[in-house]
Amino acid sequence: MISKNRISDIRKLHQKKFRDQERLFLVEGRKSVEMLLQSKFEVVEIFATENVFRENQKLLQYSAVTMVSSADMERISTLNTAPELLAIVRQPVALLPITDDEPILVLDRIADPGNLGTMIRTADWFGIRQIVCSPDCVELFNPKTIQSTMGSFCHVQVRYEDLPAFLKRQSHRRILGTFLGGESISTFAFKTNDIVVIGSESNGISSSVAQCITNRITIPRGQTTAPSAESLNAAIAAAIVMERWSDR
Amino acid sequence: MISKNRISDIRKLHQKKFRDQERLFLVEGRKSVEMLLQSKFEVVEIFATENVFRENQKLLQYSAVTMVSSADMERISTLNTAPELLAIVRQPVALLPITDDEPILVLDRIADPGNLGTMIRTADWFGIRQIVCSPDCVELFNPKTIQSTMGSFCHVQVRYEDLPAFLKRQSHRRILGTFLGGESISTFAFKTNDIVVIGSESNGISSSVAQCITNRITIPRGQTTAPSAESLNAAIAAAIVMERWSDR
Repeated sequence: MISKNRISDIRKLHQKKFRDQERLFLVEGRKSVEMLLQSKFEVVEIFATENVFRENQKLLQYSAVTMVSSADMERISTLNTAPELLAIVRQPVALLPITDDEPILVLDRIADPGNLGTMIRTADWFGIRQIVCSPDCVELFNPKTIQSTMGSFCHVQVRYEDLPAFLKRQSHRRILGTFLGGESISTFAFKTNDIVVIGSESNGISSSVAQCITNRITIPRGQTTAPSAESLNAAIAAAIVMERWSDR
Repeated sequence: MISKNRISDIRKLHQKKFRDQERLFLVEGRKSVEMLLQSKFEVVEIFATENVFRENQKLLQYSAVTMVSSADMERISTLNTAPELLAIVRQPVALLPITDDEPILVLDRIADPGNLGTMIRTADWFGIRQIVCSPDCVELFNPKTIQSTMGSFCHVQVRYEDLPAFLKRQSHRRILGTFLGGESISTFAFKTNDIVVIGSESNGISSSVAQCITNRITIPRGQTTAPSAESLNAAIAAAIVMERWSDR
């Protein structure tokens, strides 16, 4: 059981203002919560619907597990379909440092939480565990971002930094950015410790970040004389580059 | 100006039932409508907010253009932010036939309209102009699908077919599907007239379709000993395969 006040408190975490203030965030859905429980994140409280609560004995290892009705789960969740599990999680205070030889994905002004989450999931698949976002990127702890990572937020470090300042500190690395007319990714010789910059959905890479790019790369269009798409979705472009980068 | 009844009629097209019944669909947003006007789709009516109505002389070539207030545009649109242009468009009755030498992307039970739209946009970028969906894929004319194509629905033919029957008629082609343990896409020799099958977000390729697959291909994970993502998003997997397929 869960009181009206408690429901109202949890619902506050749907908003960035309260997530920032409380330094908490929500993880929703069975798979995501199960991956969370194998991670180092500090889980403050778990809410489970009755069927999961009864069948999943592992959950009972956690001190703060509350059984809730589906109706109450619907109230505390941001999802249209009530999940079976929902966790309140502490935002980490420290991240693992970036080592000199590991790949870094840099995201410049990504606005869509689904895109950010999908990029985290794709980076995780390709073994890229460090993502650096510009301060105006969408928030990692937005429930839609967390949802789209499908649990990969547990494996990938995401930090927010002033990008020109960050990139200037990385002068031993090449900094790659996607532009029209760059070298084709199919022939470009990627290195493990490259940095790849992906620009925003609508405006690409901002000019102050573009000045830090050392190598311009391009995803070639298919051969066609007919009119074709003007651009690729940012998460799609990032994935295509990561796949080539991973195949080095 | 636009009457309450008219608003209510247009809002009916937010629902699949009425889109099916009227054989109409909505195209929303300036860029999408501008691409639409360069296509062969039959535009039934266009609604424009005042600023676009006054500045875009091209629009006046169309007989049925109505100026609406931002408030009314918000009412007739499915988007959270009212677009500047919205068009009511006739669903095409016939599609261009598939020629023997052109690539085909086959989608099996794709449920998310954003994923379908993104796959259409990506296919368009890579010059793949024929998509065949299983009957239980999400609807092309869902406003979220159309929105995510960013106008590429104008360039790509999307049809719905019983997939095992369709694939059996394509016996002169190879039919590729993504599976764990298949041949790596980085070494696989793609051909222009291959068919690539992408399975659903949650369940992959269904068994009746899997029986038609002639070549199993795989997107390899990055080299890592740490736990990583369990899978890729369907639109991401499709994009990565299309990029390799395009680079033949």
